[in-house]
Parts: sequence; structure tokens; C-alpha cells
Amino acid sequence: MALSNEDKLARDEVVSWMREEGLRVIVDKIGNIFGERPGSEELPPVVIGSHLDSVPCGGRYDGQVGVVSGLEVVRTLNDFGVRTRHPITVAIFTNEEGARFSPPMLGSGVVAQRIRLEEAYETRDERGCRLVEELKRIGYLGKEWYLPAKALHAYLGLHIEQGPVLEEEGCAIGVVEGIVGISWCDITLVGAAAHAGPTRMARRRDALVAAAEIVRAVRSIPMRVCEEMVATVGHFEVYPNVSNVVPGKVTMTTDIRDPHDQHVAEALQLLREGVAIAGAREGVEVEVSCRWRVAPVRFHPEVVGAIERAAGMLRYRSRRMFSFAGHDAQYMSMLGPTGMIFVPSRGGVSHCEEEFTSVDDIEKGAMVLLLAALELAGHA
Amino acid sequence: MALSNEDKLARDEVVSWMREEGLRVIVDKIGNIFGERPGSEELPPVVIGSHLDSVPCGGRYDGQVGVVSGLEVVRTLNDFGVRTRHPITVAIFTNEEGARFSPPMLGSGVVAQRIRLEEAYETRDERGCRLVEELKRIGYLGKEWYLPAKALHAYLGLHIEQGPVLEEEGCAIGVVEGIVGISWCDITLVGAAAHAGPTRMARRRDALVAAAEIVRAVRSIPMRVCEEMVATVGHFEVYPNVSNVVPGKVTMTTDIRDPHDQHVAEALQLLREGVAIAGAREGVEVEVSCRWRVAPVRFHPEVVGAIERAAGMLRYRSRRMFSFAGHDAQYMSMLGPTGMIFVPSRGGVSHCEEEFTSVDDIEKGAMVLLLAALELAGHA
Repeated sequence: MALSNEDKLARDEVVSWMREEGLRVIVDKIGNIFGERPGSEELPPVVIGSHLDSVPCGGRYDGQVGVVSGLEVVRTLNDFGVRTRHPITVAIFTNEEGARFSPPMLGSGVVAQRIRLEEAYETRDERGCRLVEELKRIGYLGKEWYLPAKALHAYLGLHIEQGPVLEEEGCAIGVVEGIVGISWCDITLVGAAAHAGPTRMARRRDALVAAAEIVRAVRSIPMRVCEEMVATVGHFEVYPNVSNVVPGKVTMTTDIRDPHDQHVAEALQLLREGVAIAGAREGVEVEVSCRWRVAPVRFHPEVVGAIERAAGMLRYRSRRMFSFAGHDAQYMSMLGPTGMIFVPSRGGVSHCEEEFTSVDDIEKGAMVLLLAALELAGHA
Repeated sequence: MALSNEDKLARDEVVSWMREEGLRVIVDKIGNIFGERPGSEELPPVVIGSHLDSVPCGGRYDGQVGVVSGLEVVRTLNDFGVRTRHPITVAIFTNEEGARFSPPMLGSGVVAQRIRLEEAYETRDERGCRLVEELKRIGYLGKEWYLPAKALHAYLGLHIEQGPVLEEEGCAIGVVEGIVGISWCDITLVGAAAHAGPTRMARRRDALVAAAEIVRAVRSIPMRVCEEMVATVGHFEVYPNVSNVVPGKVTMTTDIRDPHDQHVAEALQLLREGVAIAGAREGVEVEVSCRWRVAPVRFHPEVVGAIERAAGMLRYRSRRMFSFAGHDAQYMSMLGPTGMIFVPSRGGVSHCEEEFTSVDDIEKGAMVLLLAALELAGHA
């Protein structure tokens, strides 16, 4: 989890690897780590970014694969004594997952000036810990900026697909064209807690019954808007949560994603309608608040092309695709030309302990990352 | 909450009031407290029972009204120097609510030999505290038995109705004829946790979506079986409960109540069918286990008659009715003739902070309790 003791251990280890490779390490004011391999000229860097944080009960590949592949690119360049015109920088962003501190992609969002630094600092986890205190505690509250103080020449991210498409189609490489739009909402339902015995069914204002209607409504939204869309209720709390008390309150979240912003807007409209109907039917007060929304992003044709060419040179089967997960690349694309490489996820699963990508597949991804980075940074 | 520090404070206070009235105080092996006012002859006691424990965010009347009314009966007899043939004993039962330790009505269940003492001792709360340790800690682990060592001449309980009927019909007194049958089940659903982005809708095995179907199914069961029935999902936990992860697991409880045992059996059959359908539709594994079940009880005509006569003598409007909440009277009716008095609940609500009964209404209930106890215990 972001800024936990385990995150600190992982960060310390990676920073020591960066130093072993002679990288200049900068920790910025939001705890992002940058390890720069200088170029032969004073030019903006090619940044290879990923994250070290995970979700509760998450796997060992989401984020980590991008970090070790970035380091491997730098090691390979060092081993072969290859110099590049532009610097190549391995970046590790703070709180990508958003599982501990909300919103996700917080470190890159601050760098892209889409999230205010002061707001990010005041973000609290479930136990009330402030993000800035946790940064201090683990020793990763820096004093300077790397991006956007420096201009971004290009951004590359390597990540597991987290979906089944590459595996099903026998592709080694996903050439990511863009990232879906994402909306997160909080829904609160307030009915009336009451004794589960003497409170007749007709008199109840059961917040859980209304919330169950909404779970079903959310499930049906993609069928009504667009087959590609995904919609999820992931967080769900019932109060007072006692077996012989009619639930008086429920809080829940929705997560809606689609490559087209218009589809997300339609889904939010359907969500509001569904919530209102469920609340009215059960006599429960409802409130929907949109906590976070990010528009779909289309990556830069030059970077997408460099990735596709690299896969072609290596004779790896590749296909173009959209990412349904948010990535720091979303914010980085606001600072400069950006692209991403996907490697297959076994069974399409992630954010769980069964998450798996073979070392062979990771190596292929790292090879594509190396060649694409070389093309973008230019041989000296 | 049962056996908490607050429960200890309440018990200590009530025991001191008992001693002030000259009652002989016995704490039994499951922490039930008995305060006996001796009769003029060596006869089995008339027991006036209630409880001091509550539910989270519960009110100030459920249980407490019966305790103070029982004490007031004894005080009144003392004040007027009235002797009775049978002893009159005020009883306070351990863990009536079942909100901290499951099952509910634990203290009376042990006395009625329907719950084994050793099992009761090993019951744990959510944090893993054993009941016997908590009894020891608060100083209420007794060494003897009162009931059933002594035979029970009659049992009387005064309680808030927890429903709207008395208020709606302008009655001061509910003459309780019996208690509904109650069934508690635990349901576990296991699907597959997965990333809320790249996991296509068609590939999901979302435990929350299946659980929401079950909440709706439970809501519809009374409509299909019997209008009087109530059915509730009160406890509901989602795992891993993170907004961008498809829920992999849900645990939930059901609470079903009806005056007829056959109806409860039909409802459990419908529940099992509904759970199986919801699980199959979503590809989620389901398990239903019946944690607790108690048959409906009909109270003794002699005690019911004594209560009705008392209300009549006092010219209070009364009506016969069933209790939809479980009460220790359920178990006590297995040991001897039993009856209960209900007083109105404003708005029919209970198990919440809005729970309210006026002092006037409580006084009327206590007057009926006094006259009924006198009739059953007999003037000396």
C-alpha cells in the first residue's frame, strides 16, 4: 500500500539499484522518484515510468513489471556502453493505485498540475493518516521538482494488460493507443434503522434493499450504453451492520470506464436515474457525488509508432488496443508525447494474488521498451 | 453491548438498587442476575425478567423499561408492606440482544438448557473475546444456579412493543399471546476478485452482484409466503471492498420471522432457491448455513389472562398480539407458565436512537405488571 512500511522498503531497494547503475536520483515534493541517465546533450528526457504501490490482496506484477523493465533498459545501455542524445529517466510515481489515498495516480496528477499539491498533501487514508505525514515518515518528501521543471521529450510505460485480449489472441505485445475515461462516484443512502422483528415490511425504509437495486442498475448500464463499457460497485458499507437491525444507511462507490467520454456521460445520467428510482421505491434518501473523473486519452502517434516498429523489428506479434485501467501515462500525456506497452496477463486477471505474467513475456516487453526508448532518445 | 464496561456499570447500579430494596442477589454461572423478594411460604418464584444489554446505536428503552418496572413493582410492594405467598424475583439475563455474542437470548437459553453452558462460554465476539473471559473481567461469573435449580411458578416480562400497532390503535397495553419463530442464516458468496477496469463484464464473477440479487430475493419472500412475515438482511460485508476491484467475496446474514413454523420453513426453502439461482447466474459459489432457529411460542393462558385482567381492572385499553422480536420469555416458557406485557413504541421504531416510550405509558405497563404479579404470586 502506498507510503506503507513495505512501500518504503521497496523504494529504498529500487533507489539503491538506481544508484548502482549510476543514475542521478531526485525525489520530488510529492514523493515521486526519478533516476536520470544523462544524455550526450542538454535535452528534455525520455521518461520510463511505473509505480511500486499495490492494492490489498493485489499481485506481484501490476506496477513492478514496469519498474524492473525500466531499470533493465538502463542496465542494458550501461552494459553495452550505449549513449543517447536525450537523457533516459526511470520514474516511480506515488500512490498510483488510489487504494490507500484517493484519488489514484496522485503523484503524476500533481506533476501534471491536475491535482493541487496542497490538496494531495491533505489527503487522508481510512485511519485518518495525512499523506504528507506519511511521505515524511518514510523519508520520501523531496524538496524539488523534476517534471514539469524539465520538459518531457517522451513518456513510455510498460505494464501488464490486466485483461484477457493478448493471451486470447496469442499476442506478445499490446501497443496501447489510449486510455479509457474513468468516473468514480460516491453514493450515500439514508433510510431508517429499525428492529428486524416488529418492523413490518411495508413500513421499512431499508437502505440495503435500495442499494442492492443500485448494484443491479450499475451492472446493467454497459448493456444499455456500450458493450465495451465496464461498470463496478467495489466499495460497499452497511450501517449499523447487525443481523437483527434493518440497515439504516449504506455508502457505496461506482467505477465506470469507456473509451468514449460521451458514453461515460450517458452512463452517469443512467446512474443518477437508477439511484433516484431505487431511493424513491424504498423511501430512502439518496445522494450521488462524482468524486473523480478523467477524460479518455489518445496517445501520441510518434510514440505509438515507435513501440509498433520496435515490436515489428523483434518479430513479436502485437496488436493495437485501449487500456481499461488508469495509468500515470494519462497525466504524462498532458506534458509530452506518450505511449504504453502491454504484456499478457494470464487469465486476464489482476488486482488479486493470481495475477501472473511469465518472465518470457516480461522480457519481450522490456526488449520493445528498450528499442522504443532508444529510437525516441536517439543514438549519440 | 453485552459484558462491556458499560454493561458492568449498569449491572452494578441495578444490583445496588436490588440490595437497597432488601432483595437477595444471586449471579448465576452465565452471568444472569436474580434479585429475590422472599414469599411467605417456601414456593417457586414469580420471575419478572428483562435485560440490560443493547445493540450498537440502540435506544434507551429496549430492555431497560422491563428492568426498572420490575424494580418498581418490588419497591411498591415494600412501600405498602405487601407480602406475597410466592417469592417475586427480578431477573436480568445476559446477552439478550445477540449483537455482541451470538446467539441472542443466551443467558435464558442456558437456563432453559437449550444452549450448553460450555458452548456459551466459548462464544466469541468480533474481536475474538471469549464470553467466559468477559464475564470474569466484569465480575459477573457466578458459581451457582437460581433457575432451573428452583422451579418457576410464573414468568412475566414487560417490554416496549418495537412495532406500531399499539400506537396506531390507541392501546396502552399489548397482551402478548406468543412470540414468532425466528431463523438466522449466514450466507457466503465467493466469486473472483479482479481489476474493475480491464475485466470485461461478461467475464466477471462478481460476488456483490449475486449478493444484491439475494437481498432482493429476501425482500420478496414475505410477499410470496405470508403478509405477516418479516425478512431482513442486516449484516453485509464485501471483500476486498476497494472501489476499483470487482468484489470477490460477500458474507451476509438473513433474519426471517413468522408466527407459524411452517411459514419459516417455506421461507428457508425459497431462500435456498434464490441463493442458488443468484449464484449460478453470476458464476459465484454460494453457501447457506442456518446459524440459529427457534420455533414460535404460545404463552400460557393463565398468565395471559392475569395480564388481561390487570389491564381491565385499571381500565387501560389493551389488545392481544404476537411479538415479532425474540425475548427471554421464549426460553422461560419452557420452564413454566409465561406471559408478556407490551407498551407502545413511538413510530414503531426501536434498535435506534429514536426509540421512545413516554413515562406515562411505562407507568401503565408497570401498573399492569404489579397487579399481574400480585395475582400470580398471591397475597399472603
